[in-house]
Amino acid sequence: MSNTPLPITFSEKFNCFAEQWSPKVVAEMNDYQFKLVRLEGDFVWHDHQDTDETFIVLEGRLTIDFKDGTVELEAGQMLVVPKGVPHRPRASSEAKVLLVEPKGVINTGDVQSDRTAPLDAWV
Amino acid sequence: MSNTPLPITFSEKFNCFAEQWSPKVVAEMNDYQFKLVRLEGDFVWHDHQDTDETFIVLEGRLTIDFKDGTVELEAGQMLVVPKGVPHRPRASSEAKVLLVEPKGVINTGDVQSDRTAPLDAWV
Repeated sequence: MSNTPLPITFSEKFNCFAEQWSPKVVAEMNDYQFKLVRLEGDFVWHDHQDTDETFIVLEGRLTIDFKDGTVELEAGQMLVVPKGVPHRPRASSEAKVLLVEPKGVINTGDVQSDRTAPLDAWV
Repeated sequence: MSNTPLPITFSEKFNCFAEQWSPKVVAEMNDYQFKLVRLEGDFVWHDHQDTDETFIVLEGRLTIDFKDGTVELEAGQMLVVPKGVPHRPRASSEAKVLLVEPKGVINTGDVQSDRTAPLDAWV
């Protein structure tokens, strides 16, 4: 068996799904996952009690609200949301985002919502 | 003190250094680091015995040789090199790359080289 790993092409992976707010795993590194997600509209306020969470914007613009401020991100920018910090992602038009976080992180944290997405959905 | 984290702009960070093969930390997520690096020419063959390593190409083209194959990456692509797998990055002209790996990973693995870069150099 070859030990040569396969490259992941973000645009090809995005072509495989159209759903928004439903992160798709594209790669694993140790016990972490890289997930692609399409975001549009307002997400729910939530936090992750056990882990930081990384947003890397690949296309479009993403806004993340915090209790005491708002961060605007565009392609070529990233943000690490520290664990336990409440935040609300939103986007006025569709943003394409790469998430990096440990395996098993639920997108809405402890908040049950119609936006709660299945874990480990690969694309 | 504000809990609102600061966004990281890759282009601004790259403007702060010109050295090649010298990864600069731009963010931490739990016990992982995000590092920007400029790569040009051939790196040394090495592996990382204890961890996978992620390459995300932001600009240019990056080639990674493996013992039984070669992967070509361009902007918009990523690759996870599994732990323990020997590899040699190279680039015929400068590539700008985002690395994701645990804190404390030495760029040349166990190989001592003039390409061995200091740990925890932030930009």
